[in-house]
Amino acid sequence: MTRSPRDFPRRLDLARGRIELQHGGGGRAMTQLVEELFVAAFANPALCALNDQAVLPPPAGRLVLATDAHVVSPLFFPGGDIGSLAVNGTVNDVAMAGAQPLWLAAAFVLEEGLPLAELARIVESMARAAHAAGVAIVTGDTKVVEAGKGDGVFITTTGVGVARDGVDTGGDRARPGDAVLVSGPLGEHGIAVMACREGLAFDVPVRSDTAALHGLVAALLDAVPAAAIRVLRDPTRGGLGATLNEIARASAVGMQLREAAIPVREPVRAACEFLGLDPLYVACEGRLLAVCAPEHAGALLAALRAHPLGQGAALIGHCVSDPQHCVELETVLGGRRVVDWLAGEQLPRIC
Amino acid sequence: MTRSPRDFPRRLDLARGRIELQHGGGGRAMTQLVEELFVAAFANPALCALNDQAVLPPPAGRLVLATDAHVVSPLFFPGGDIGSLAVNGTVNDVAMAGAQPLWLAAAFVLEEGLPLAELARIVESMARAAHAAGVAIVTGDTKVVEAGKGDGVFITTTGVGVARDGVDTGGDRARPGDAVLVSGPLGEHGIAVMACREGLAFDVPVRSDTAALHGLVAALLDAVPAAAIRVLRDPTRGGLGATLNEIARASAVGMQLREAAIPVREPVRAACEFLGLDPLYVACEGRLLAVCAPEHAGALLAALRAHPLGQGAALIGHCVSDPQHCVELETVLGGRRVVDWLAGEQLPRIC
Repeated sequence: MTRSPRDFPRRLDLARGRIELQHGGGGRAMTQLVEELFVAAFANPALCALNDQAVLPPPAGRLVLATDAHVVSPLFFPGGDIGSLAVNGTVNDVAMAGAQPLWLAAAFVLEEGLPLAELARIVESMARAAHAAGVAIVTGDTKVVEAGKGDGVFITTTGVGVARDGVDTGGDRARPGDAVLVSGPLGEHGIAVMACREGLAFDVPVRSDTAALHGLVAALLDAVPAAAIRVLRDPTRGGLGATLNEIARASAVGMQLREAAIPVREPVRAACEFLGLDPLYVACEGRLLAVCAPEHAGALLAALRAHPLGQGAALIGHCVSDPQHCVELETVLGGRRVVDWLAGEQLPRIC
Repeated sequence: MTRSPRDFPRRLDLARGRIELQHGGGGRAMTQLVEELFVAAFANPALCALNDQAVLPPPAGRLVLATDAHVVSPLFFPGGDIGSLAVNGTVNDVAMAGAQPLWLAAAFVLEEGLPLAELARIVESMARAAHAAGVAIVTGDTKVVEAGKGDGVFITTTGVGVARDGVDTGGDRARPGDAVLVSGPLGEHGIAVMACREGLAFDVPVRSDTAALHGLVAALLDAVPAAAIRVLRDPTRGGLGATLNEIARASAVGMQLREAAIPVREPVRAACEFLGLDPLYVACEGRLLAVCAPEHAGALLAALRAHPLGQGAALIGHCVSDPQHCVELETVLGGRRVVDWLAGEQLPRIC
């Protein structure tokens, strides 16, 4: 790409500038925004070609495709921001198919008036998260809507990866007897965002657990036979409760969980109590849920705990035969309750 | 997927219902929306698996990835709507790499209060456009934002396709002497949306040209040697003017166009005059621009005109050697003017 002063006489003012409608107009201002902000941060050959698409080498294996719109509010929260979330969230959706994420596409809907400094922080955070995850942001799009027709920035990321041969982790593969494991304590992302939004301060601050989990998934696939891992999911919106109900329904099984075995850190438990939330329904962004053949559950738990992102892993219950495909919890007091689908909206705009 | 009355006692009220925050919450309401609306309309095996990602067969060749956020206002306009636009727009970005589009991902940001009937119309339009284009919508995502934090619906589509061997249509490949062709009359999409938005009625109504162009691209690749087609682009936002300036800059060439050769239909010309717009900068959504080796320009023009979507094709100018990479127009009166980059925003939220 040649560059002449005729194109952009002045550089973008990233300190004081704001998004204007012309940044989405397809002309000079948009090209400048794309080149000086997005391409500069995400630099890679496919993106730098500045075409309307990326041309990539043929992937060796089954393709995995996942997309996620991110609308989290506020844009910045303890432990992360919409940028790192948009990268990790989609990387994880690809990873949960037992796949190696390779490439991301990123589409931005920007609200007129958004400070360029905020956008630059978000973009830099995306670049760091992508670099840490070993994925390249190879193509993108930028639209601008009038003030009052959006909310700062929405980011849709779409991920492409390659699945390992022989791996199938679809939600319909759980069987009675299978073990249910989680990779760590629940609810930290949701509580971090909620506390930030509501201006709540806790004695021990809660940080989002946002993290890319494909390395952890690869470690699990190395530890046990591929067929032993029935289902992998990241319990995001709706938390563990929603995710387990989806799996139970898709697999036509029931589940029995032990509340005492479900890891929730004390500050999250306290915050949930204060906010009237059930940690079972609060979103994680750096945890995974695995359903696994019972004879390999021990090896899987050991593999989880051996990885930096799975140190707090636990075996929390089992699948059972149940024509009603109920998810049941044995409470710490010895009672039983149904972990039903989330009926209403518990935490809006959490991701 | 089994279905029991326990899950959804009542069907979605597509006639009178509205989007609520809980439709984005990850629980029962969201699952119902996804199943009864999106999966029902887009039905295909990958999507019906209801996982957080699609697992797809290995594509045979270089992968092409393109993403586009669609924020057009109004949502419905003569000749199309945000749904058909979201499918065709991304299909075209994939096609312009000389590729066969295979799969789409679709991410929705819905505003609380959106009538479900409008969403259903949009989703049905997407399904029709995808079917017509021969692509499957294999995965998706749904988020809901509070009333006043969005604008009805934004749709980000991401397309995956496979490039033909030996084809390279990147914007940096134009050379002095190359011919510049367009596949049909300009500005119809932009004027259709603008007229609808402003409530303008013309004697002859203008309809959006939105269409999927990969069939036309395949016909061009069959008609001339792959290396003869230097650049393919669809002139969307910013129109022909912006697209040609991008190519001129990326290829470090100048361009000389003949205004008399540039096809613009009379109603579009009249509307542009009325609205104070230059048709060279008004978006198309069903036209392509080809830069081609001069000795193959005749064959390419014939191939364009032989296809239903290229009947109005024209050879509009040539690339020249020019260190300033200017796009110049010889006007119908014999004068010359520079077709500069679009400086400001001409038509916001056109796609």
